[in-house]
Amino acid sequence: MDSSPFSQRSIRDYARPASAEELDFVLRAARRAPTAAMMHAYSIIVVTDPDTRRTLDELASRQKALKNSSLLLFCIDLRRARRWGELLNCRMTFGGYTGLLFGAVDCTLAAGNAIHAAGSLGLGTCVVGAFFHRAPDVCKTLDLPPGVLPLLGLTLGLSAESPPLRPRLPLEALVHENRYQDSDDEAVRRSWDAISTWSGGPEEVHRSEEETLHFIRSTIAGPWWESGEKQVLEALERQGLATGTAPTSGDGKTG
Amino acid sequence: MDSSPFSQRSIRDYARPASAEELDFVLRAARRAPTAAMMHAYSIIVVTDPDTRRTLDELASRQKALKNSSLLLFCIDLRRARRWGELLNCRMTFGGYTGLLFGAVDCTLAAGNAIHAAGSLGLGTCVVGAFFHRAPDVCKTLDLPPGVLPLLGLTLGLSAESPPLRPRLPLEALVHENRYQDSDDEAVRRSWDAISTWSGGPEEVHRSEEETLHFIRSTIAGPWWESGEKQVLEALERQGLATGTAPTSGDGKTG
Repeated sequence: MDSSPFSQRSIRDYARPASAEELDFVLRAARRAPTAAMMHAYSIIVVTDPDTRRTLDELASRQKALKNSSLLLFCIDLRRARRWGELLNCRMTFGGYTGLLFGAVDCTLAAGNAIHAAGSLGLGTCVVGAFFHRAPDVCKTLDLPPGVLPLLGLTLGLSAESPPLRPRLPLEALVHENRYQDSDDEAVRRSWDAISTWSGGPEEVHRSEEETLHFIRSTIAGPWWESGEKQVLEALERQGLATGTAPTSGDGKTG
Repeated sequence: MDSSPFSQRSIRDYARPASAEELDFVLRAARRAPTAAMMHAYSIIVVTDPDTRRTLDELASRQKALKNSSLLLFCIDLRRARRWGELLNCRMTFGGYTGLLFGAVDCTLAAGNAIHAAGSLGLGTCVVGAFFHRAPDVCKTLDLPPGVLPLLGLTLGLSAESPPLRPRLPLEALVHENRYQDSDDEAVRRSWDAISTWSGGPEEVHRSEEETLHFIRSTIAGPWWESGEKQVLEALERQGLATGTAPTSGDGKTG
């Protein structure tokens, strides 16, 4: 385990959580990430309380990565800027899709720094997307006020496994020069070859073409995306972040 | 310039762009980033054509960071999964806010890896948010098809400056334990002290309280957020990514 992007893999089997000193190092690294217009449009919730942790583990269906690990929740936070507006008696114009997406960028750059810092300490990490799809319950559990939305979870700890690198699409599928090059059918099918090698466990598994196509079909057309989206919509409404609804409406002051 | 998060700073003054070999290294590092459900919901456009580059530099108001540097555009890409659905004759259920925000996470984790990889080569980088606010023109310039949205630009090259670290809010403002702790007025004002030291140039500048409050007011309540949001809404409609509009509508097949 090191911090090189080329050896980066998600760790789902941990020997122990991060220590308090390791967590502090990781959080200080996250804080150094670039932030758009100095808005710091994110917050990190460190989950240390056993009951809170149990509730969150249940919400994410007790994934393997949640066992023996520390858990950080990275949240989009427009509440901070709203409080600034309240104190300075001015109407925040930052919001809508811009607020959500700039918030997501701030949040994820901080999470990326945390991943690299953890790697440099010899710790493993795993991004957990499931909390986003249980956002209404996560908001209740962590008392997230309006303007704050849980985006991603990050588990970290000492790795108890050494999995092979997960497959990635080839560079020519991901990178375009000057103009977007739409892939023809042959190029798409060729790119699937690259992800037919799977490594969910300690060993690499080579999928048959049929298995690969089944995997891709279930990934893009699974029923969970639609049920998750319903939860996300509920959370956006609840948190005053549905676009079209200015995040300042309700308690924001005008000046 | 190294890849430690603790010495990370944005570079706006470049001696030269990245070489082809350096770019290749950075792009291969970006490709290794975690990706939700193997969707690879992002694309990177490398801008090498001088005319295209001039157009984009104009769109971002010829910011200093765009001079003498290489430019990568990191885009949310739901088009890829849509093409997969077309070939496999199944309806993509991934979309809406989930598609936008998971796309933003994939995109930004890849950009974060690029930043760290560039740092490990001794190169500087700067995240450029301005392209997002010129998204309709960027989409036209780069021929971005429906399902693709430019999220952030990244300049890179050999640094010609050694700026001090930019200020960040204190850790206690960004990190919460178990429950979100809303800051009282005094804590908010205290956190502003931390960003009263500014370092936009080679030297640190200490702002007066009045200057700091003016900076914060203009940051959260600037007119550009609202004009930028209009552009973003136009781009989301144009690219078939406005939430409520399923990104598959139009040319997606049902199966």
